[in-house]
Amino acid sequence: QINGDRLWDALMEMAKIGPGIAGGNNRQTLTDEDGEGRKLFQSWAEAAGMTMGVDTMGNMFFRREGADPDALPVYVGSHLDTQPTGGKYDGVLGVLGALEMVRTLNDLDIRTKHPIVVTNWTNEEGTRFAPAMLASGVFAGVHEEDWAKARVDAKGKNFGDELERIGWKGEEPVGSRKMKAFFELHIEQGPILEDEGIDIGVVTHGQGLYWLEVTLTGKESHTGSTPMPKRRNAGLGMARVTELVHEVAMDYQPSAVGAIGHVDVYPNSRNIIPGKCVFTIDIRSPQLKILNEMRERIEDGIDLIAEALDIDAAVDEVGHFDPVTFDKDCVKAVRDAAERLGLSHTDIVSGAGHDACWINRVAPTAMVMCPCVDGLSHNEAEEITKEWARNGANVLMHAVVETAGV
Amino acid sequence: QINGDRLWDALMEMAKIGPGIAGGNNRQTLTDEDGEGRKLFQSWAEAAGMTMGVDTMGNMFFRREGADPDALPVYVGSHLDTQPTGGKYDGVLGVLGALEMVRTLNDLDIRTKHPIVVTNWTNEEGTRFAPAMLASGVFAGVHEEDWAKARVDAKGKNFGDELERIGWKGEEPVGSRKMKAFFELHIEQGPILEDEGIDIGVVTHGQGLYWLEVTLTGKESHTGSTPMPKRRNAGLGMARVTELVHEVAMDYQPSAVGAIGHVDVYPNSRNIIPGKCVFTIDIRSPQLKILNEMRERIEDGIDLIAEALDIDAAVDEVGHFDPVTFDKDCVKAVRDAAERLGLSHTDIVSGAGHDACWINRVAPTAMVMCPCVDGLSHNEAEEITKEWARNGANVLMHAVVETAGV
Ligand SMILES: NC(=O)NCCC(=O)O
Ligand SMILES: NC(=O)NCCC(=O)O
Repeated sequence: QINGDRLWDALMEMAKIGPGIAGGNNRQTLTDEDGEGRKLFQSWAEAAGMTMGVDTMGNMFFRREGADPDALPVYVGSHLDTQPTGGKYDGVLGVLGALEMVRTLNDLDIRTKHPIVVTNWTNEEGTRFAPAMLASGVFAGVHEEDWAKARVDAKGKNFGDELERIGWKGEEPVGSRKMKAFFELHIEQGPILEDEGIDIGVVTHGQGLYWLEVTLTGKESHTGSTPMPKRRNAGLGMARVTELVHEVAMDYQPSAVGAIGHVDVYPNSRNIIPGKCVFTIDIRSPQLKILNEMRERIEDGIDLIAEALDIDAAVDEVGHFDPVTFDKDCVKAVRDAAERLGLSHTDIVSGAGHDACWINRVAPTAMVMCPCVDGLSHNEAEEITKEWARNGANVLMHAVVETAGV
Repeated sequence: QINGDRLWDALMEMAKIGPGIAGGNNRQTLTDEDGEGRKLFQSWAEAAGMTMGVDTMGNMFFRREGADPDALPVYVGSHLDTQPTGGKYDGVLGVLGALEMVRTLNDLDIRTKHPIVVTNWTNEEGTRFAPAMLASGVFAGVHEEDWAKARVDAKGKNFGDELERIGWKGEEPVGSRKMKAFFELHIEQGPILEDEGIDIGVVTHGQGLYWLEVTLTGKESHTGSTPMPKRRNAGLGMARVTELVHEVAMDYQPSAVGAIGHVDVYPNSRNIIPGKCVFTIDIRSPQLKILNEMRERIEDGIDLIAEALDIDAAVDEVGHFDPVTFDKDCVKAVRDAAERLGLSHTDIVSGAGHDACWINRVAPTAMVMCPCVDGLSHNEAEEITKEWARNGANVLMHAVVETAGV
């Protein structure tokens, strides 16, 4: 059994770095706050006797030696970066839960056969630099490193420069590590576990996603003196695309979701008809067929909307992953651990993307989920109980130790 | 006849201050560039023998003495501030056309009976600080000066502080001046004159307007893991309001227009369902009844939209003027001037708001309009011909001189 109080204290301590404005966190990737969070995590991990490796994407790896140092390590972790208005647990629980596991193994003087490596993946959230799960994606060979480094934020700064600026570019080539398995603990970010009063989600699948960046170009003109039939209103086009995305998602729900979260309107003046809108569509489904159908319907719809309004439309894919099926044995290890600990559990599909979704392509992978209050995440009010955190970390530890052998 | 080349040169010279990125201007009110533009205008006006007065709202008044110094002056002018992506003529033509008139009167050694005062009104555009026509509104007693000074821009800076910062807060109390009449020359900002090949618009009326700032509050949550029925999507609400405004305007057009030009989405992250949207609706009509009906339908519709999406809605009026009927005699002076100069003309309604609309409440007022290419305004590509500018300034001069007497 892990130490629930110590885990909670670590969560609260980390949350002091990059505080938000409403009780949550703003510790976006590759900011000074991210750098500070990494330093704190490093100090804790080293105090727990682990040794650090950092790769050229800034991914952090802390190794706890195994009885057989040549055996492939079992990896375990998540991410420390947050949304601009994020919670204290999204990602962080997975990293500090893994740290707590090592602290507990130290307390109990348990040595696993396979080494254990606790990991913090860079830029999971994808808000500052799209796409999400960028550095685990490079690790898994999904993205080119150069391409990833060239991603720019809203201020025009690129990933590579910002990584060097905060001093967390390592020497180690990305993706050079071989894993026996990878486990990630994460809050559910959805309402199912809490609604059904279940302790543990055994994640069998993950939804697939497209992020489609749409640029609509109409014509800036005066809101007062431009006759209605003469308008080429990109803002009206954006409104119609927003409704379309919602309609398409509603047609397939509960097997799909869709929304637009990020929007830029030009020139954004009260008395100028928008001449250009740039915004990102987020659509997801656990079924590849549905995901692709949604994309097709939305792209076709955008063309019709643009035509009707005499505006131009361009669609650019800025994020994509197919639905994921996690590794059977790893999933079983999670389920067995919950069972052994006497915790109620259910198989669930992850609504969000996770680093585990990419790592699953290069190593046997599974995820553990714990409930979060009201299913709320990507909100500063994101909340969990100490009990939920403890249960999740316990299942994580048991699944990892089972896989790593004693 | 005014000097068309000299007027054009002045327009091009002024356009060098606060250049845009696409051939137009970004000389927003109370920026350093606005200050620079004012200085240039001051130097020209003083070189033309006029003496300056500046009021506590930063309105600039240059007086050319009349044969009867005690007679009420005829005022003439417009504004030098621009949209963030504005043209070189919107407002500027009215100020520099008035200056050119005085230069011509000097050349011809004509002294009018009534003094002439050339005016630059502060913050006509209303983009940086809503509402539009702010300082002429205070002059006309429509707004309280303290209220006007407390308007804040998107960065939280207020009008009063910014006016002092650029050094253009004068000593003179606002609205203390009495006028015999006020004339304003402006580009049409709509397509009618060009489409019909007419030289001069004799502005008989102006549209009324509401600016309604809407705040929709839903709940920030994860785009991937929040089930569709659990969403409280403020962005979807904004989309529906955008469509509603368009529909209502279409129902009344050509006697109405409506659009949303300014939008803020919170927290504006690709994978967060918008928890809050703040945006401004701009609706206009030359008929008070229609304008008020539109507002009612839109406010009712917003309530329904908010209810259907389980979000909260608040509507705040941040700009309003009733439709305007300009002074019969002043309008006649403009029409007669066009007639006398052999220019084709038609009576038109101003689609945009103008300082003249407020001044009309405290003095007999009229406006002269000249065509602009494609009716395009509030766009850096706004264009007019030298000929159109010359015709407009000539009509302005003849109407003013007629009214001021020789
Ligand atoms: N878990 C999580 O919120 N990841 C961010 C990427 C996504 O939007 O799913
Ligand atoms: N003329 C002009 O564009 N004025 C700005 C106020 C308005 O939006 O009508």
